[in-house]
Amino acid sequence: MKQILLMDGPDHKGLIYQVTHVLYNHNQNIISQDEYVSPSGQFFMRTEFEGEGNPKSILDDLTATLPAGLNLRLNPKKKKDVVLFVTKEHHCLGELLIRYAFDELDATIQAVISNYNVLQPLVSKFGIPFHFISHEHKTREEHEEAILRTLEIYQPEYLVLAKYMRVLTSDFVKHYPNRIVNIHHSFLPAFIGANPYRQAYDRGVKIIGATAHFVNDNLDEGPIIAQDVKEVDHRLTAFDMATLGKDTEKSVLSKALKLVFNDRVFIHGNRTIIL
Amino acid sequence: MKQILLMDGPDHKGLIYQVTHVLYNHNQNIISQDEYVSPSGQFFMRTEFEGEGNPKSILDDLTATLPAGLNLRLNPKKKKDVVLFVTKEHHCLGELLIRYAFDELDATIQAVISNYNVLQPLVSKFGIPFHFISHEHKTREEHEEAILRTLEIYQPEYLVLAKYMRVLTSDFVKHYPNRIVNIHHSFLPAFIGANPYRQAYDRGVKIIGATAHFVNDNLDEGPIIAQDVKEVDHRLTAFDMATLGKDTEKSVLSKALKLVFNDRVFIHGNRTIIL
Amino acid sequence: MKQILLMDGPDHKGLIYQVTHVLYNHNQNIISQDEYVSPSGQFFMRTEFEGEGNPKSILDDLTATLPAGLNLRLNPKKKKDVVLFVTKEHHCLGELLIRYAFDELDATIQAVISNYNVLQPLVSKFGIPFHFISHEHKTREEHEEAILRTLEIYQPEYLVLAKYMRVLTSDFVKHYPNRIVNIHHSFLPAFIGANPYRQAYDRGVKIIGATAHFVNDNLDEGPIIAQDVKEVDHRLTAFDMATLGKDTEKSVLSKALKLVFNDRVFIHGNRTIIL
Amino acid sequence: MKQILLMDGPDHKGLIYQVTHVLYNHNQNIISQDEYVSPSGQFFMRTEFEGEGNPKSILDDLTATLPAGLNLRLNPKKKKDVVLFVTKEHHCLGELLIRYAFDELDATIQAVISNYNVLQPLVSKFGIPFHFISHEHKTREEHEEAILRTLEIYQPEYLVLAKYMRVLTSDFVKHYPNRIVNIHHSFLPAFIGANPYRQAYDRGVKIIGATAHFVNDNLDEGPIIAQDVKEVDHRLTAFDMATLGKDTEKSVLSKALKLVFNDRVFIHGNRTIIL
Repeated sequence: MKQILLMDGPDHKGLIYQVTHVLYNHNQNIISQDEYVSPSGQFFMRTEFEGEGNPKSILDDLTATLPAGLNLRLNPKKKKDVVLFVTKEHHCLGELLIRYAFDELDATIQAVISNYNVLQPLVSKFGIPFHFISHEHKTREEHEEAILRTLEIYQPEYLVLAKYMRVLTSDFVKHYPNRIVNIHHSFLPAFIGANPYRQAYDRGVKIIGATAHFVNDNLDEGPIIAQDVKEVDHRLTAFDMATLGKDTEKSVLSKALKLVFNDRVFIHGNRTIIL
Repeated sequence: MKQILLMDGPDHKGLIYQVTHVLYNHNQNIISQDEYVSPSGQFFMRTEFEGEGNPKSILDDLTATLPAGLNLRLNPKKKKDVVLFVTKEHHCLGELLIRYAFDELDATIQAVISNYNVLQPLVSKFGIPFHFISHEHKTREEHEEAILRTLEIYQPEYLVLAKYMRVLTSDFVKHYPNRIVNIHHSFLPAFIGANPYRQAYDRGVKIIGATAHFVNDNLDEGPIIAQDVKEVDHRLTAFDMATLGKDTEKSVLSKALKLVFNDRVFIHGNRTIIL
Repeated sequence: MKQILLMDGPDHKGLIYQVTHVLYNHNQNIISQDEYVSPSGQFFMRTEFEGEGNPKSILDDLTATLPAGLNLRLNPKKKKDVVLFVTKEHHCLGELLIRYAFDELDATIQAVISNYNVLQPLVSKFGIPFHFISHEHKTREEHEEAILRTLEIYQPEYLVLAKYMRVLTSDFVKHYPNRIVNIHHSFLPAFIGANPYRQAYDRGVKIIGATAHFVNDNLDEGPIIAQDVKEVDHRLTAFDMATLGKDTEKSVLSKALKLVFNDRVFIHGNRTIIL
Repeated sequence: MKQILLMDGPDHKGLIYQVTHVLYNHNQNIISQDEYVSPSGQFFMRTEFEGEGNPKSILDDLTATLPAGLNLRLNPKKKKDVVLFVTKEHHCLGELLIRYAFDELDATIQAVISNYNVLQPLVSKFGIPFHFISHEHKTREEHEEAILRTLEIYQPEYLVLAKYMRVLTSDFVKHYPNRIVNIHHSFLPAFIGANPYRQAYDRGVKIIGATAHFVNDNLDEGPIIAQDVKEVDHRLTAFDMATLGKDTEKSVLSKALKLVFNDRVFIHGNRTIIL
């Protein structure tokens, strides 16, 4: 089986040599290797390899050989288990369901969770469990508690907020550190807050965009994974801009998920390194 | 000679009919006509026409025919007179000088004004007057006063801030209402303020851009004329991003000036309508 | 009801005036009007208007007023009836079905016709008739005859070839002149023919694209409606390029259909004029 | 001094390990390392490193250690010597001269050669030798002979065809194998031949582009280094499209040269691998 080694930490002379040496000794064939050293001296490397041999013993050998203080992860190359979160908008969900139905997502959609039930008919067309967990008559904590209980069933590796319009609490986010991906309307970091297309229209921007990012404690402010933009002009209404923006959102989210599900994204401070 | 009629104001039924009727009576041939009505009911029209006849009498006839409250301007189609403002960066200036040297700018560069003299050698290659007006040992008002005295010589129609790194006072801007074009590093409205490429780098953005806009009282906040972006990734340093950003700045500024100098840009509130 | 007037033919002085005059007399309010005159003197105009009154009598009045030789069409603003053609690839079909399910297509999908039955399960999720018309054991003429009989049931205004991998005969195309829209893999006019992504890979291109166009007698050579591209690099395999290409195909096809279904596309020789 | 190691050839297990081992033994610090293995099993690696020690002995050691059949080059990191070729168009030349004047080109422009003298005034502004070598009254061979004699003076590492409108013979190209960079109007491989913007206009394309490529025996058909495109619509005349195309040409050529002059471009068959 193919393996993906992810490694990051302070740079030392000889790191690439040491890793390739261990893999060579274990008779592994390197399929691809990409690395990056930041100007501040942080080292990142993604190595995809295959061969006979025990992944556990390769990892042990790497740990023993490499300097302390490095973060090492060894993942088999396989589909991720994910749960999608939606509210009422269908565009990102529809895109992901079609990709999933034809095995293009690099992930298994275990379930869809929503605080409304309007998208249930769409999800049910694809034979995926839909959990309608209303936030009404619940405190924020009670609502998130109910969601967490549902997630217990699935034990997903990633949560995808495919236009989920509720802010998650810090406490919730801590259950899935660096494992929640969100798609943000408009062009981050501009126009944070409500009704961004209206803001963009009023400002007369000539470009609108979308940003996929990890979720951390600051709403809409986690590390950026992917962005894209479209040109607009004065003839578009705020509604037209939102329509075009939704197209951008769905393609940016798909692109970001492809990177995340293929173990290509490192997080460093508020930045992502994509290898 | 070709004429350009610019017209904007509250929409009324029959406006296009009335204008085309007057031009028809004056035996003018319409070369192109573009109009836009905003969702809030504001009408904008740009008509390019030619024919024998007196522009003054056409304008009088239009004024007499059309409802009151419309803003009418009739310009002969010709190059604009402009003065460029620069500080130390050469990229936008170099682009404009080369275009000017080969008659591609739709404008006459009457002079270049700078608060430093580092770009004097470049400007002198092209035989254009360079005015070094240092801001040192002067109050802001004294400095702007000296600039205004220099501008008196040239009576330019537009000022182009081609990386002029000083904030203009409200009083100065009032001398050239809607006639000052600026190019702004980074992607407006994001990262307003100092060292935007450093901010963008630290935030790990995947896209950087530039914005050309009219200057009004709020620094970097006038109506946007043109924007463009480039994709970046984690491998670019803040310096690399600034380099790529400068390329974007010069092409966006050129694009915006082409629109402005061809009388294609209407200003409405904080938006531009480009016909 | 809103009406859309489409008009094209040789340019004459006063055409805009004459049209606006008639609409003014009929007490119609012009919502938007766009026109274009080609360098060779061909006039094109799209006028959207509304008001009380009889469309038939407006059209009669226009015909009586305007010079002979102009092509005039008056359409009520409404959804188009369309039939989709597919073979085995799902990406364009999936995109259109999702848009249709949420009323974003400006069209009614009456049926899907395919020469294979692999996409039947997807189509049936959306409750749309699926006609599997195999081409096996049939001559090309017999196959197209069977398709034409099925189309008789629906009387569609447009046919959309959403990755239909069979060449249509001249005779078939004549039944739907300028009413068949195709999406072409790769970047037209480059790499015409089989396996274009392999061709593009072997050539080491840095950009791939997709083209939506009307179908005429020459395969892949009708008037272009929309195009878009994506950047690629050497790291993408021919398969990766095909995957990215499919994303481009579906967004370009959607964009083109929006223009066509809103009566924005004029055909002039081998070019489109989009107003 | 920084060194750049370029290595390509058939892939073998352990290549990265062997290279990093040698550099480690020589006490060199790897600044960046990028490699790529093609689906057909060809290995490419670019390693930038620095440290005390003798480059010659590092290269000898690498040659002794690595399997035979690999192509190894070790270049000090420094500006390339180049000669530009132009005909009458100034846009690419102007861009390169401004970059050169402000030390942004990663190259030294030793001279400009032209078959016309119209650009001599521009070049002389920048104090660079201009050689007017007319092709009139000369056979193709005599003309190229005269150019080659001039190049003898400069011994350039690269020739840049910055809108040089003459086809070079196979014999000429053999003097500078993989060392001539050309910028091609329009979007390769489409519209090969004369007057491409006219062809593109007549075809009604919605996108135009430019391609920078190495020159080989087939005109306009060498390995592609960089491409870019701009959106166009029916309102642009063939002249407008050419104007926009020129802007694209100059930015694509600059981008390609940056890659070439930084030793980032490998050639493999008719493709480029850019590391």
